[in-house]
Parts: sequence; structure tokens; C-alpha cells
Amino acid sequence: MPNSVKILSPDGAIEPTGTWSLGTRAGDFVFVAGMRGIDPQSNELVEGAEARIRQAFRNMELIAQSEGARLTDAVRLTVFVTDMARYRPIVNTVQEEFWSGGLYPPRTILEVSKLNQDDIFEVEGTFYAPPSRGQAKI
Amino acid sequence: MPNSVKILSPDGAIEPTGTWSLGTRAGDFVFVAGMRGIDPQSNELVEGAEARIRQAFRNMELIAQSEGARLTDAVRLTVFVTDMARYRPIVNTVQEEFWSGGLYPPRTILEVSKLNQDDIFEVEGTFYAPPSRGQAKI
Amino acid sequence: MPNSVKILSPDGAIEPTGTWSLGTRAGDFVFVAGMRGIDPQSNELVEGAEARIRQAFRNMELIAQSEGARLTDAVRLTVFVTDMARYRPIVNTVQEEFWSGGLYPPRTILEVSKLNQDDIFEVEGTFYAPPSRGQAKI
Repeated sequence: MPNSVKILSPDGAIEPTGTWSLGTRAGDFVFVAGMRGIDPQSNELVEGAEARIRQAFRNMELIAQSEGARLTDAVRLTVFVTDMARYRPIVNTVQEEFWSGGLYPPRTILEVSKLNQDDIFEVEGTFYAPPSRGQAKI
Repeated sequence: MPNSVKILSPDGAIEPTGTWSLGTRAGDFVFVAGMRGIDPQSNELVEGAEARIRQAFRNMELIAQSEGARLTDAVRLTVFVTDMARYRPIVNTVQEEFWSGGLYPPRTILEVSKLNQDDIFEVEGTFYAPPSRGQAKI
Repeated sequence: MPNSVKILSPDGAIEPTGTWSLGTRAGDFVFVAGMRGIDPQSNELVEGAEARIRQAFRNMELIAQSEGARLTDAVRLTVFVTDMARYRPIVNTVQEEFWSGGLYPPRTILEVSKLNQDDIFEVEGTFYAPPSRGQAKI
């Protein structure tokens, strides 16, 4: 059904524990839910700010990749932290790793009052991945 | 004009009171402005947290439906509350009702400092509704 | 490569100073990063709330226009302020100027704890600008 929304739940991803799913594909776009640094093995938060932020990006990447989208296919990131001064530099460091020094997607970074589970970081990513591109391999 | 943005203002919806509209259609996507629990009859906030949150989802649904999008056509929800511990469980309960127990769209939920009118809940939804699908009924 | 994401960096725009870019085009949509009131000449924040908010919209507009999108092609704005009571009326005033009294795009406005550089206002805009429309001029 190319005209309907596909709900994503790829192997190896975290388990949603509430009334939400990990992501959707609709047409040429992939929408990933806000990802936090949860270890998909244990479904527990990873210890340490940098490790946890890295895990959140990894969780986002896995869901995007399940639909053929690479990190360089991100069209927009919205990043939420609970302490701008403390976590923004770490986000920058982790993004340098993941995007290999550039080109980076547009990003909006905001300090909010609280995240679920009193977490420190969440990233919401939207990706562009026309299905035809993947199918061209056939 | 299929190549331009359509501003939505369906019958029965709330009245925007500032420099914003209720939603847009562009191509296959429908973008609904952040909806709060305003009663479209009185244009006043509904009393009671659960009733107000339910009304916000109903307001979003009405706008989406005016372009042929059902709740299961949501590609992303971003939910803003002013008290995570207090309102997140209510949001979950209300979403269970509206989505009949699943499948749910991806959701990012954030506690922010303040909403307009000192409100407690706002939901921003994006939907996928190719016009051709509706036209197929003809 | 129509099937990949185009990173935007038009002449005259501000310079991103971190791990982000100004915007992307993907298919028919243009995604602009959260824009603040930075003067592209000096790369410094503009003085005065109203002037700064105006500059932020101007920065967004320039990036959108570089891909053929006008302000009336905005499909969604998300506005972040650090004081709802103080800045929302100014945002309304500035939008009236930019959109010439209407029709306005859907908008979600939120008070958050902090923006980068302790700024007061940020706007994230998404636009619809099918490339074919621009090419029709040829």
C-alpha cells in the first residue's frame, strides 16, 4: 500500500513502552520518534552523558537505516536537552563522529524543562529516502 | 493549484485568534498547527485535564479529516505538556481511546515552561493523505 | 541527484558555527534550521527584541527564497520564546508585517527554558516549493 503510512519496528531497536511507535515511512520521508539513550538490549538508559547521547543517535540511525536512510539523508533534527551549557558541546562532539566532520543536517537545539524519565537528551529526526533509490539495486 | 500550499479552515473547527492558521496541505502531507483543548462552540478552554486533552486531539482530528487524513495517517506527533509526571499518563489514556489500542504514530513528548494562555497540553500533528486516495472513491 | 538531500548555504545567509547547516531541500520540501536574530554581516545578535525577531524571520526567508519558496509557501512554523507574555505579541506584530496581514501558516508557539546563546526567540520553518514551479519560468 504505497498510499498509506508504514509503522516501523525494525529488529534490534528499542521497545516502545507507551502509546507511540518508533517511526513511520510516508511517501519518500521517514519520521523517527524522539530517541533517547536507551540500550536496546536492556531497555535501560545508558550511563554517562556522552555515552547516552551517542546511544540516542545510534537508536535513531538504526530506525532510519531500516528504511534505507543514512544519516546524511536527514532533512531536519530537533534536539532537546535539559541543560544547554552542559550538553550542547557533547552533542556537537557526538555529531562530529556520526557525520564524520560534515555536511550536517539543519538542527534546532532547545533547553526544555523535562524529558520523559528525567532524561537529559532527546533527538527527533526526519529523513528523505525515496523507495526507488533502494529498489535501483535490483 | 496543486503546486501551492492550501490553508485549511474547515467547518466546525476552532477560530485562530492570532497570526496563524489551523493547518495546511502541501502535496501529500497535511500539517496541523499545535492544537489545545479549546471548545470550538465557545472558543474557550475545556475544564478538566483529561477532557481538555481529549478536546485537543479532537480538534486535531477534525482538521486532518477535512483533508481525508485519519488518525492512523499521522506520521508524527509532538506533544508539549507543562507537567510530565501529571499529564503524560493522561495523554497515554486518551491516545488509547483515539487510536483504539494501537498502532500509534511516533511521538515526542516534552515538558516546556509555558504554553499560550497558561495551558497544560498542546499537540502538533503531521499527516499523510495523498489526494489520489480520496479521489479513488469516485 | 533529485533523489538525495541538498544542503543549503545561500549567499548572504548567516554562518553556522557548529555541527549544523542552514537548511535542506528534499523533494518538494525545504526545511530551514531554527533561525535566530543574527545579523549575517557581523554574525552577532541584533539588539532589541523586535529588531531581533524581525531579523530571525528575515534569515529564515532568505534561506527559503534561495530554493524558490516564499513566506506564503510555509507549511508549518514552530516558534520558541523564553517569555511567552513578553515576546508573543511582538512575534504577532512582526508576522503581520512579513505576511502582509494574512494568510498565515500554522504555528505552534512554546516557551522553553533556554535557547542557544541565551537568546529570546527562535523560529523553525518548513516550506513547500516543487522545483517544477520554478523551472516553469524557462
